[in-house]
Amino acid sequence: MIIHVTRRETFNAAHRMYREEWSAEKNEKIFGKCANPNWHGHNYNLFVTVKGEVSYTSGYLIGLKQLKAIIQEHAIEKLDHKNLNLDVDFMKGKMATTELLCMEIFNQLKTPVEANKGIFLHSVRLHETENNSAEYFGG
Amino acid sequence: MIIHVTRRETFNAAHRMYREEWSAEKNEKIFGKCANPNWHGHNYNLFVTVKGEVSYTSGYLIGLKQLKAIIQEHAIEKLDHKNLNLDVDFMKGKMATTELLCMEIFNQLKTPVEANKGIFLHSVRLHETENNSAEYFGG
Amino acid sequence: MIIHVTRRETFNAAHRMYREEWSAEKNEKIFGKCANPNWHGHNYNLFVTVKGEVSYTSGYLIGLKQLKAIIQEHAIEKLDHKNLNLDVDFMKGKMATTELLCMEIFNQLKTPVEANKGIFLHSVRLHETENNSAEYFGG
Amino acid sequence: MIIHVTRRETFNAAHRMYREEWSAEKNEKIFGKCANPNWHGHNYNLFVTVKGEVSYTSGYLIGLKQLKAIIQEHAIEKLDHKNLNLDVDFMKGKMATTELLCMEIFNQLKTPVEANKGIFLHSVRLHETENNSAEYFGG
Amino acid sequence: MIIHVTRRETFNAAHRMYREEWSAEKNEKIFGKCANPNWHGHNYNLFVTVKGEVSYTSGYLIGLKQLKAIIQEHAIEKLDHKNLNLDVDFMKGKMATTELLCMEIFNQLKTPVEANKGIFLHSVRLHETENNSAEYFGG
Amino acid sequence: MIIHVTRRETFNAAHRMYREEWSAEKNEKIFGKCANPNWHGHNYNLFVTVKGEVSYTSGYLIGLKQLKAIIQEHAIEKLDHKNLNLDVDFMKGKMATTELLCMEIFNQLKTPVEANKGIFLHSVRLHETENNSAEYFGG
Repeated sequence: MIIHVTRRETFNAAHRMYREEWSAEKNEKIFGKCANPNWHGHNYNLFVTVKGEVSYTSGYLIGLKQLKAIIQEHAIEKLDHKNLNLDVDFMKGKMATTELLCMEIFNQLKTPVEANKGIFLHSVRLHETENNSAEYFGG
Repeated sequence: MIIHVTRRETFNAAHRMYREEWSAEKNEKIFGKCANPNWHGHNYNLFVTVKGEVSYTSGYLIGLKQLKAIIQEHAIEKLDHKNLNLDVDFMKGKMATTELLCMEIFNQLKTPVEANKGIFLHSVRLHETENNSAEYFGG
Repeated sequence: MIIHVTRRETFNAAHRMYREEWSAEKNEKIFGKCANPNWHGHNYNLFVTVKGEVSYTSGYLIGLKQLKAIIQEHAIEKLDHKNLNLDVDFMKGKMATTELLCMEIFNQLKTPVEANKGIFLHSVRLHETENNSAEYFGG
Repeated sequence: MIIHVTRRETFNAAHRMYREEWSAEKNEKIFGKCANPNWHGHNYNLFVTVKGEVSYTSGYLIGLKQLKAIIQEHAIEKLDHKNLNLDVDFMKGKMATTELLCMEIFNQLKTPVEANKGIFLHSVRLHETENNSAEYFGG
Repeated sequence: MIIHVTRRETFNAAHRMYREEWSAEKNEKIFGKCANPNWHGHNYNLFVTVKGEVSYTSGYLIGLKQLKAIIQEHAIEKLDHKNLNLDVDFMKGKMATTELLCMEIFNQLKTPVEANKGIFLHSVRLHETENNSAEYFGG
Repeated sequence: MIIHVTRRETFNAAHRMYREEWSAEKNEKIFGKCANPNWHGHNYNLFVTVKGEVSYTSGYLIGLKQLKAIIQEHAIEKLDHKNLNLDVDFMKGKMATTELLCMEIFNQLKTPVEANKGIFLHSVRLHETENNSAEYFGG
């Protein structure tokens, strides 16, 4: 009897879209105003869904304090008030899009979440604006 | 050609986390401020998703008035303005967590929803706060 | 490594529930105030989810400008500030319910979305109010 | 010691912008797609704010059941699932804009709200979409 | 040149409506399901608005960390995961309504907020549900 | 008979808090993670409220297309996908806080809004996150 539990955390960050090997003109042509060399930014909403069997003793799948601590340590502390292109080790060499950021957050969280016996990381959903989001369920 | 239809209903309730066989100290150590013997409470958001084939005559999967009536009778009337630990028959002897409440609401709704020919209960999603939710898809 | 990307667009429209072959009385009995011959309307929220593999060059699954343009051309321009019963070619002869509208928007979007190599239409979710929505994943 | 209390109610309605004495062309030129002769519609959010001194016996300014009943009788029942141009007596001969609708709802509610001793109607705020709203504080 | 700054904080609490000197029947007649002797509860949203002149050195009216600390110490820590009738010193002997709670939170915050030179408490707005709120601007 | 009309627009931007004449250490001590030299950013929600008398011919205070165009030209185009410290002429030499940005947007909008006979700029409210906002009503 599998239950899914979702925790929301938020972070604010700067980023830009560009490829170093392209000229400023090409970057602006392809990525439009998202290529602004002076950066722009977002309030991100991160939804982490874990799954497994409930403990009937505690009534929890996993303590939310524990789940929150994992997300804080492995994602939020590395992302909040940061520049996604410059400051985040696991985004080095990658485009700072919602898609890739979502996938990399999943990869960062998988091991520490699943270090809890019987708990599995189901998906990571990342909202960049109220209109745009990505979701990743693993490989 | 299967369509999913989701109806939101809300309820307000009190609860606490504790195990009677544990001391007050142990309950507070394990459950923190959620163990407050004087209770606390939440505005719950309940999302019930049913699925099946649309009737081309009515254009509906199921009349929303009918779906709402089922959710009201079998869930909301038993939960709204109640104490989840003391007042709710189907929660007796269970921890009043979002996870178990979500699963039990699913169990309460399954038979009356599926008494409608061709309608299946797909999932119940329960939000305790804007940050925490659980979803259950059945056994 | 499949990523899901969701874009929200909105539109406002009028509609009513009725069957021409039924009397006004029968329509009102079956559909209640939704049968009002003078129409009523809604602000619809449309969530279109596409999936596929991310391009590591752009970091995108699909450019959002491109995805938005497809949704605008094939759905929003035909629906926004329209009468769903009278003005929308792909709803002719169908009940103007959230369920059927959701399915038809999916059908409208499938070909133009999937004209993009490696991009698949995963689902269309349509919210008629904050309490009612439908989602369709294809046939 | 004056407290303000706000109650939200919602309604769905159809409308259009046009002046009968103008040609279809002029109406479309001035009002754009809002002039669609086949109507369009919205989910309206109505926020009614009343003010006065709290009763220390009940702890309430006014019972919410009572306030809700006034708003339902004098506004929602006349507006919900209606055509604002055709079905609403107090909008006859007026443009069905958010501004005028907001002012007329205020006028409808003022007498029944203030029939309660010590209770005053402070304002009516009406949201047509998530981006557009009007608020009226009286003459 | 006065600026208004608003900070949102949230808390979850249990309460009930009743007067000790009334019978259970009278309490239920007057307060309905809100009188449930086993309590119910809510997720409260608290909006605290302060005003004054901006410091051009910092660009702030007041540091949000500082404002948050005041609200946490004088309101949230006393209210979160508490029973509003039993656990909160400043609500003793008062009905646990949104109106009175809103006024008392204002009274709690006024002195510590205004201990900051040039900062004034403008209002406290308290949302009990998505439909009901109260706002208090002082005596 | 004065009506207030509010239009929401959104923009995404990067910024940081720092004073050039201060050391990196002092900036970090005073502004915390908001001083990150590599910037961070937000999705801003801007609410512009104008007031005046309704035209009974159009039913509008001001055409929303016109109001939107003013806000786009004088605020959004200068702010969206920009760096508030580096790219925005009217923020040069000022701290990029919500307070000062809110006041400067008001100053930018006042003349073009009030170039419309009978229309007055009432306030500008700016939300930096779901928890923090500022509002300015003029000098």
